Amino acid sequence: MKLLVAQDIGYCYGVKDAIDEVVEASIHSDEKVDTFGPLIHNSSAIQELTDKYNINTITDIHDMRGNTLAVRAHGIPPKTLSSFLDQGIQIIDTTCPFVRKTQNIARQLMEDGYFIIILGKKKHPEVVGIAGHVEDHCLVVENEEDLQGLGRKNKIAIVFQSTITVDDVGHLIPRIVEHAKEVKIRSTICDITSRRQAEARELAKQVDYMIVVGGKNSSNTRKLADICRNEGVQTVQIEYPSELKALSFEGIESIGLTTGTSTPQTAIDAILNEIKNKSHQGMTIESNPMV
Amino acid sequence: MKLLVAQDIGYCYGVKDAIDEVVEASIHSDEKVDTFGPLIHNSSAIQELTDKYNINTITDIHDMRGNTLAVRAHGIPPKTLSSFLDQGIQIIDTTCPFVRKTQNIARQLMEDGYFIIILGKKKHPEVVGIAGHVEDHCLVVENEEDLQGLGRKNKIAIVFQSTITVDDVGHLIPRIVEHAKEVKIRSTICDITSRRQAEARELAKQVDYMIVVGGKNSSNTRKLADICRNEGVQTVQIEYPSELKALSFEGIESIGLTTGTSTPQTAIDAILNEIKNKSHQGMTIESNPMV
Repeated sequence: MKLLVAQDIGYCYGVKDAIDEVVEASIHSDEKVDTFGPLIHNSSAIQELTDKYNINTITDIHDMRGNTLAVRAHGIPPKTLSSFLDQGIQIIDTTCPFVRKTQNIARQLMEDGYFIIILGKKKHPEVVGIAGHVEDHCLVVENEEDLQGLGRKNKIAIVFQSTITVDDVGHLIPRIVEHAKEVKIRSTICDITSRRQAEARELAKQVDYMIVVGGKNSSNTRKLADICRNEGVQTVQIEYPSELKALSFEGIESIGLTTGTSTPQTAIDAILNEIKNKSHQGMTIESNPMV
Repeated sequence: MKLLVAQDIGYCYGVKDAIDEVVEASIHSDEKVDTFGPLIHNSSAIQELTDKYNINTITDIHDMRGNTLAVRAHGIPPKTLSSFLDQGIQIIDTTCPFVRKTQNIARQLMEDGYFIIILGKKKHPEVVGIAGHVEDHCLVVENEEDLQGLGRKNKIAIVFQSTITVDDVGHLIPRIVEHAKEVKIRSTICDITSRRQAEARELAKQVDYMIVVGGKNSSNTRKLADICRNEGVQTVQIEYPSELKALSFEGIESIGLTTGTSTPQTAIDAILNEIKNKSHQGMTIESNPMV
């Protein structure tokens, strides 16, 4: 059996920096560090932060143990940030630079007189954060129904949740064009995410079975699994090595493996090990030569 | 039998002004007036200009009879205009103000650093004219194949042929978005054209039979007929009353009638008369109460 591992796996730089920053702060401070919501969408990474570095995840500000709070990689609305600062809380802002750029683009477009449409999931923290930067000058759109009641606007600008694809939401763009004389589209889809998606698609074409490693609540990981399934290849999304137990690789000659951008290397290594153990035949592990 | 006539029929103001201008010039000048290509896309109107006002259509500049040349409602590339002016030719420019606006928008966008995509028919004179205003900084796109070789651009702007609909070409927009970080869309679709299309669609839903009156080579007329056919109603596109002879209205209870924007009132009146004559039963003619 052959295992083909995608070239680009593990943390993206946004996630890596976020983790480094909170760990650094926790090590070099006497203060206990809490993060406001899960720092990234990966349970094992969050668990490790707690176990190894005493960094807790809280969702209510009253649960803070000290006075230092980390804002997560997905960002937050400026009003939320201001209220923290007003309370004298020390902030570690780990907002992904790519997401911050989108927040700034959206605000600038609003100042230029555009009504902002964010194509993405209404409840995703990244989208909530971007929307918070343009407040009531925006509409989050997931599907055509969301456009009802938009009415006629002078100028509309479209930005995207970073982990979405044009294939997912592109059909909504012509419908939006009907609502304004001018529409400006900024492709705020994360390059790393879209490159991984392209690689996953190619890998899925070459193998009998795809394993996608990443958090159950990770948008970009779920998207990778969807892409592989759409290629017609049997696909599982797992987070822990133990989840491999229930799977059978009988008759499988080749497996492809890719990961979300918030998947720690330790999880990847453990899963690769487990696959090797499960494989009764001899196994070769290769890095996918493409891209 | 009932005949429902669309509220908005006959010449649009762009066409009306073009005809008024050349007629005026011909009447008030000793010079013979020629038009460079058909002034509008309607043979009977063009024939009337020749018969009544001695205005000829030419396609080769060497066929000019005098020194006065009319540029038609669809506009022309500035290089063509310059070459006429360099030869000392007197120009009557009847370019539709709506089309001129699109030419100016395209040039301004080019000066702002955008690569221009014109969604429309490559050979349509309006599209050729707009493209001439941005020369090699543009691509005319009719279908997805035209996007091959576009490559990656920094900023792309999209404008539309005035008589097209977003429904026709909207699916190309998401494909274009994949080629640039920023895409700006200017909805240069003519309001009059799109209102007539909306009315034609509603009318087609109410009647057994649709008659679309207009030039065989008129883009907006053909589009009206396509829209009616897409509503599943039997539809004919005619230019002359004589074309009604071959048609049978047997069993038809209601007919809808609409026209392209370059259809003269004389042609409409003659066709309405012919329909009345053909109708063996009593007939009522109503103006469509909608819109």
